[in-house]
Amino acid sequence: MATATEADAMRRAMVLAARGLGSTSPNPVVGCVILDPDGRTLGEGWHRRAGGPHAEVEALRAAAGAGHDVRGGTAVVTLEPCNHTGRTGPCAQALIDAGIARVVYAVADPNPVATGGAATLAAAGVDTEGGLLADEAAAGNAAWLTSVLHHRPFVTWKYAATLDGRSAAADGTSRWITSAASRADVHRLRAEADAVVVGSGTLHADDPHLAVRGRPDATQPLRVVADTRATVKPGARVLDDAAPTLVAVAEDADTRHLAGTGGSGNVDVVRLPRAANGPGLDVTALLAALRERGVCSVLLEGGPTLAGSFLAAGAVDRVVGYLAPALLGAGPTALGDAGIGTIAQALRLDVTDVARLGPDLRITATPTAPATVPATEES
Amino acid sequence: MATATEADAMRRAMVLAARGLGSTSPNPVVGCVILDPDGRTLGEGWHRRAGGPHAEVEALRAAAGAGHDVRGGTAVVTLEPCNHTGRTGPCAQALIDAGIARVVYAVADPNPVATGGAATLAAAGVDTEGGLLADEAAAGNAAWLTSVLHHRPFVTWKYAATLDGRSAAADGTSRWITSAASRADVHRLRAEADAVVVGSGTLHADDPHLAVRGRPDATQPLRVVADTRATVKPGARVLDDAAPTLVAVAEDADTRHLAGTGGSGNVDVVRLPRAANGPGLDVTALLAALRERGVCSVLLEGGPTLAGSFLAAGAVDRVVGYLAPALLGAGPTALGDAGIGTIAQALRLDVTDVARLGPDLRITATPTAPATVPATEES
Ligand SMILES: NC(=O)c1ccc[n+]([C@@H]2O[C@H](COP(=O)([O-])OP(=O)(O)OC[C@H]3O[C@@H](n4cnc5c(N)ncnc54)[C@H](OP(=O)(O)O)[C@@H]3O)[C@@H](O)[C@H]2O)c1
Ligand SMILES: NC(=O)c1ccc[n+]([C@@H]2O[C@H](COP(=O)([O-])OP(=O)(O)OC[C@H]3O[C@@H](n4cnc5c(N)ncnc54)[C@H](OP(=O)(O)O)[C@@H]3O)[C@@H](O)[C@H]2O)c1
Repeated sequence: MATATEADAMRRAMVLAARGLGSTSPNPVVGCVILDPDGRTLGEGWHRRAGGPHAEVEALRAAAGAGHDVRGGTAVVTLEPCNHTGRTGPCAQALIDAGIARVVYAVADPNPVATGGAATLAAAGVDTEGGLLADEAAAGNAAWLTSVLHHRPFVTWKYAATLDGRSAAADGTSRWITSAASRADVHRLRAEADAVVVGSGTLHADDPHLAVRGRPDATQPLRVVADTRATVKPGARVLDDAAPTLVAVAEDADTRHLAGTGGSGNVDVVRLPRAANGPGLDVTALLAALRERGVCSVLLEGGPTLAGSFLAAGAVDRVVGYLAPALLGAGPTALGDAGIGTIAQALRLDVTDVARLGPDLRITATPTAPATVPATEES
Repeated sequence: MATATEADAMRRAMVLAARGLGSTSPNPVVGCVILDPDGRTLGEGWHRRAGGPHAEVEALRAAAGAGHDVRGGTAVVTLEPCNHTGRTGPCAQALIDAGIARVVYAVADPNPVATGGAATLAAAGVDTEGGLLADEAAAGNAAWLTSVLHHRPFVTWKYAATLDGRSAAADGTSRWITSAASRADVHRLRAEADAVVVGSGTLHADDPHLAVRGRPDATQPLRVVADTRATVKPGARVLDDAAPTLVAVAEDADTRHLAGTGGSGNVDVVRLPRAANGPGLDVTALLAALRERGVCSVLLEGGPTLAGSFLAAGAVDRVVGYLAPALLGAGPTALGDAGIGTIAQALRLDVTDVARLGPDLRITATPTAPATVPATEES
């Protein structure tokens, strides 16, 4: 049984892990806290970016850098320590070599090439326990777990609307429905995502930039436009050098006008099949193309037509709605046709968080479908 | 300066006052707490119903009933004690006669026939102070203050919708968008209102009953149908004996089929002018007709067309939205045309409360227009 001190350390490790959101893909986010036998913290670490040291190694280094002896200590880590020699060597072995006596982790590693770390630790005589705060830790790693278990990126659909569900007024004006605080929060969501996706309707209506602003340390997401007929114009803001861009087009689209856009070669084109039913490109093919490019998490920024297609494809894992306390009574709705004809087919969600952002409400919800969190080995 | 004990007593008095919501019109809701000189509570009371004793008299009686001597004590009351001899005699005189030494009230009485109580008390040598927690107390009496100051009932627009603002699915099905907890809460709103209003569209789509259920002590509201052409059928549930009903029709409507409906003569018809612009009846005339019938507070239960007209007329004082965590992407919207064409004309609100009701969210908001709370005499 894990102690209360270990549970506190696990919560701290989750906070550390979250700092890596948006820069570790295709790896998970992981946090680690090293405790001495009396429960005092000797070192902390988190996985900062793909290719960089894992959280356990960071925490061991931090402890060593502070002059602490970790022998006989406990490593508290959000994910089962890895067992494979990737770019940085197996963490299970690093913990054994450092003389760690006990390892407490939250979520078992479902990744076939990395799994087995707990067994390796136990075989080396390390007291190993999994499953501590597993649900919370799994939620914090939802993007990576979705990509590993479902072979597609985790999709967050973000929308902004009035209380009556309008995303613009009757004449199309929408600046600004939501407050500056809400708009800044969207940049946080972008920074935490590997890719930001919009449809060609939003592209032409808003000429959006889609890069992260106001967060100097953020890794820029891949900007993705679902643009069947390759209608994006060379001067579009989404094609500038602020971040890489992928234009998804149909197999027969004429993309000659895109050659050489983006200056520094940061604009890529992918050809995809059209949707069998409904408008535009096949959503599953689009997500597969993103996963091939290392994308574990997608922020779907709309518009309503593309969001409807994602919902119809069952490809929305989280909804973040910014609701402005305003009423319009007319104008385009936040969500377009998702193939839902009757109330029994409504996509039901669970509200996981409600926050006030300036005058607005931010509502976070996830589909009520059965959870996809992997069982841990010991819980 | 009022003491902290008096402020606590005022908060208690507001809770007591709220028990009268829905049964005191055309009177205000009022609560009263009598304290001894050491701040101990001697008696509590509230105004239960029009024609019944006022809060101060109830509190004095409660103190006497418990064998307490109130002489030299303090009366803490949410509204300035009345000065006129209505059905129950002036409260200012009752407090003087009982030997109360100090009176602390929240909101000054703006009612021309009742005002002057504070002056009467002061002239009799009672230490009198107004304005304690005036804003909170005014909010608790918003319906009555609106009816006195603006000569129309206070209107709460209630709607139920999905997160994307739909009040039904594409095929018109809407049972149940919101949870049982939300639906029960609507019965509380009905019980607190003097009248419940729907348009003929909702009447024919839902055959609603509109009476309060599940609250045995509730005063039933007046059920009101805005039905220009008098299309309500004699068997409609809204015409049954559970509560009184008012059918608002145009001046030229043929209402012969309504003669004798409702059995016990509880169905009334009012003839009103048509709206100058837009559908149906003139909203201002409808509200005036309700006020003539002693209605201080209206719960507008829709549908979207009628709600749009009320908003366009500036006749919504509070919005209560029950948002179900579900998405539809199609179907009728919660709010219809309110004459708003561009984002700068959006009706902006302030969110005053967010509550979870089962899986749903209840969002309460009021228009950001300048407050209509009357200035108190001393704050
Ligand atoms: N409030 C908000 O949160 C928010 C967010 C974003 C946008 N908006 C607003 O939404 C409006 C644009 O709406 P919209 O619905 O036209 O934009 P959209 O959803 O961004 O674009 C729709 C277009 O994307 C293309 N597309 C490619 N693959 C698709 C697929 N699988 N499913 C659906 N569409 C696909 C289609 O055009 P092709 O097939 O021709 O490429 C389709 O017409 C703008 O006014 C914008 O301001 C609001
Ligand atoms: N989710 C919710 O909270 C909620 C609540 C209520 C209703 N609903 C749904 O709304 C749907 C009905 O929508 P609706 O818009 O047709 O219903 P509605 O707003 O109840 O009725 C509209 C009708 O009311 C009459 N009316 C009279 N005076 C009016 C005025 N000043 N302004 C506007 N209308 C006036 C008009 O018909 P005449 O002039 O011919 O009389 C008008 O067509 C139903 O499906 C119902 O289930 C949903």
